[in-house]
Amino acid sequence: MNYSMIFYLVGNLFKVEASLLLLPVAVGLIYREYDTLPAFFVTILLLLLLGLVLSFRPPKDRTMRAREGFFIVGISWILLSVFGALPFVFSREIPRFVDAFFETVSGFTTTGASILTNVEELSHSILFWRSFTHWVGGMGVLVFVLAILPSTDAKTLYVMRAEVPGPTCDKLVAKVRRTALILYAIYLVMTVILILLLLLGGMPLFDSILHAFGTAGTGGFGIKANSVEFYQSAYLDAVIGIFMILFGTNFNLYYFLLLGNFSKVFKSEELRWYLGIIAAAVGLITVNILPLYGNNPLKSFRYAFFQVSSIITTTGFTTADYGNWPVFSQTILIIIMFFGAMAGSTGGGIKISRVAILSKSALRNLRSMLNPRSVRTLKFEGKALEKQTLAGIHCFLTIYVILFLGSVLILSVDQFDHVSHLTAVASCFNNIGPALGVCGPVGSYAPFSGLSKLILSFDMLAGRLEIFPMLLLFLPATYRKH
Amino acid sequence: MNYSMIFYLVGNLFKVEASLLLLPVAVGLIYREYDTLPAFFVTILLLLLLGLVLSFRPPKDRTMRAREGFFIVGISWILLSVFGALPFVFSREIPRFVDAFFETVSGFTTTGASILTNVEELSHSILFWRSFTHWVGGMGVLVFVLAILPSTDAKTLYVMRAEVPGPTCDKLVAKVRRTALILYAIYLVMTVILILLLLLGGMPLFDSILHAFGTAGTGGFGIKANSVEFYQSAYLDAVIGIFMILFGTNFNLYYFLLLGNFSKVFKSEELRWYLGIIAAAVGLITVNILPLYGNNPLKSFRYAFFQVSSIITTTGFTTADYGNWPVFSQTILIIIMFFGAMAGSTGGGIKISRVAILSKSALRNLRSMLNPRSVRTLKFEGKALEKQTLAGIHCFLTIYVILFLGSVLILSVDQFDHVSHLTAVASCFNNIGPALGVCGPVGSYAPFSGLSKLILSFDMLAGRLEIFPMLLLFLPATYRKH
Repeated sequence: MNYSMIFYLVGNLFKVEASLLLLPVAVGLIYREYDTLPAFFVTILLLLLLGLVLSFRPPKDRTMRAREGFFIVGISWILLSVFGALPFVFSREIPRFVDAFFETVSGFTTTGASILTNVEELSHSILFWRSFTHWVGGMGVLVFVLAILPSTDAKTLYVMRAEVPGPTCDKLVAKVRRTALILYAIYLVMTVILILLLLLGGMPLFDSILHAFGTAGTGGFGIKANSVEFYQSAYLDAVIGIFMILFGTNFNLYYFLLLGNFSKVFKSEELRWYLGIIAAAVGLITVNILPLYGNNPLKSFRYAFFQVSSIITTTGFTTADYGNWPVFSQTILIIIMFFGAMAGSTGGGIKISRVAILSKSALRNLRSMLNPRSVRTLKFEGKALEKQTLAGIHCFLTIYVILFLGSVLILSVDQFDHVSHLTAVASCFNNIGPALGVCGPVGSYAPFSGLSKLILSFDMLAGRLEIFPMLLLFLPATYRKH
Repeated sequence: MNYSMIFYLVGNLFKVEASLLLLPVAVGLIYREYDTLPAFFVTILLLLLLGLVLSFRPPKDRTMRAREGFFIVGISWILLSVFGALPFVFSREIPRFVDAFFETVSGFTTTGASILTNVEELSHSILFWRSFTHWVGGMGVLVFVLAILPSTDAKTLYVMRAEVPGPTCDKLVAKVRRTALILYAIYLVMTVILILLLLLGGMPLFDSILHAFGTAGTGGFGIKANSVEFYQSAYLDAVIGIFMILFGTNFNLYYFLLLGNFSKVFKSEELRWYLGIIAAAVGLITVNILPLYGNNPLKSFRYAFFQVSSIITTTGFTTADYGNWPVFSQTILIIIMFFGAMAGSTGGGIKISRVAILSKSALRNLRSMLNPRSVRTLKFEGKALEKQTLAGIHCFLTIYVILFLGSVLILSVDQFDHVSHLTAVASCFNNIGPALGVCGPVGSYAPFSGLSKLILSFDMLAGRLEIFPMLLLFLPATYRKH
């Protein structure tokens, strides 16, 4: 392992995190929250000090193989969360470190699961930092660090593979770093448009910015006890509902749109699966919940659309307590919890492309059972799928199931009920946020034990980084010389 | 599709089922249940008539390809259950056909899920037939039909692959039919030994035979309202507990024991996984339920061992209402529900060999992520695993998950609760029997709707036949000429 390169990168990451913390400081100054500001200053100083020490000497050997790529991503996200949790602890707004760590991991991984029972008590600067972590985590921060550092493209590619969600990683342009910067620019512009649209709907500026962070990162931290339901506005529901779906779309497609390459967008197989699943889920739930909304199809559609959009994109905003919906609708929501959004988006979950490829591969295998001698190639997005990609997806699914069951087993020591344990893990692993039972739309993760909170934090990180970077940290083979 | 061959085989199957029905008739004569006997006679006559018509002319073309193999297995098990349900309906002991069909499917697939709320009301002959279906379904009946018919080995192999559980199908001796007959002989002898051991423990003859059927087939239909708990005997608990594990073991291993080839048994990787998982589950549960049994480790072990043995072998006998156990123990039981027993046994579930191969393959993939250039072969049972076998297992798992989620979704229309829907499907798909919630150890499947009962029947058949024969019945490509 090339540790000097890793120290150098972590050092630079700390410096970036220190500068990101200047934004909540600015918010604190505007709102004159002088009690909270020292918590940020101490954290910033600590990060700068450590950052300067670690990145003082650029490494001579800049080699980065696959293992360094995974390791740096895994360790960076943990450290980012450890230090990101400090302002919560120092300001005493979330006094216990394990709670603050859970909340920060939930922020950076764009999960939106919260241990807070009364979020409206928090100061503006802390609220801002909490939601800002969503925006930072949405597109990933490490690729950004690499994009602004002097380094070759090959190094960036390994990190990008580990940090950007999806079974494969497309380069838009020959240079990986330019690809990264293009995607960040699209992300920024879309966020600004969303803020403007929310302001147009009468949402206050502060609320608009924070909800835009939560939507863009598909994170879902609310700033009101009853999330987006608070605003009671069909316009805001529609804007946020549509933008969640937009941020759950593969960002490469926006780049193609910018280039005027519409056919590439319309031909996208993953996009069609994504929209098809959304349409089916919204349709079924709209009909199923009709009686709850006075048989008003428009009202029923409004709540069905928002909740489906929020859960399939793994955002987690709510406008209705679906804990009271019929079991059939709840089951649909639980199933799409696992599907998640498109690869290359800010959303979590297993990803639509994996679901599509797995389904197509299973169907092909069924057909080849009838005609054992015929050989068919599996195609996705018009191209033959590489065997390695398919093997990778199957491996992903197996480890996903193993980690999922292990987590549920450890949580079950807490003795709530099966639905709470199962959906808490499903919600955290897929970076959604709310679950059912104790941690449903109106509950919180506070009642879980410290151990369970750590397990759920691991699950959130494993979900955001698609398991391998987190898992390899705990594999002895990673540290073995060879 | 070679329909004349299929008619011929189904005809012979009907004749075999007619002769199997002579056994409950004998029981009815012994217990003088003259009211029930006509129900059996009518069914036998119907089967003989249809059997003779269908098998009147042996087909000229005896070709059987993979598709005929799958088709004949799928359609046979459905027809077997349709006609096997008739005595229940005709005798009015289970008046509704959908209930009787569910009960018979549950019998032949060795699930043991019951719609009966008071099993002790049934007549002896009906009880006998109900439990006898377990014994018949345990080893599969179609391989038996083929083994006694004049046919070539190649044909039998396809059917054997479809009817015998497990990812691969080993031939013990060069001739497939001789392999089948050896396995049936072992099955019969082990059942007789079990009956004798139960008699020794003071269980009445009738009860001993029926419990032996339920244990041998890993079925689990009880004949008392509280299953094996009724007998309140540690000896009987131990005998049945151990024999469930024995019948959940790959029968090929017994053949090797008979040949004196002990090293092959001790080296069996699947056996070591199987016993290891059982030991871990029993250990954890024993400790977890200690307080419920007055901190008596022996008593706690007795109940933990029986329940784990019953569920991992997918039998479903109970000696304790584990619905009252701590959630942690319940979670372990739910997880091992899916594992199931060894391949080539009478047990259901995903099978230990699949679980082991999936885990090993995932670990190998993780390792190869660290060293992308190194190539490792995956070994199981000391041999390199064929790529096709692994692809088959992955396909199996994907379709398993799809059917599982689809079934839960349809069941959720019944509006019980998530745990009932989820565990009912898990229990039926893995051929276990009892679940949690409404269909827990003290409940029954009676409250479910007719549609749900049909879906669960499909799941039981799909579970017993390892999905493909059932699924291909509904695939248009199966019937297409090519």
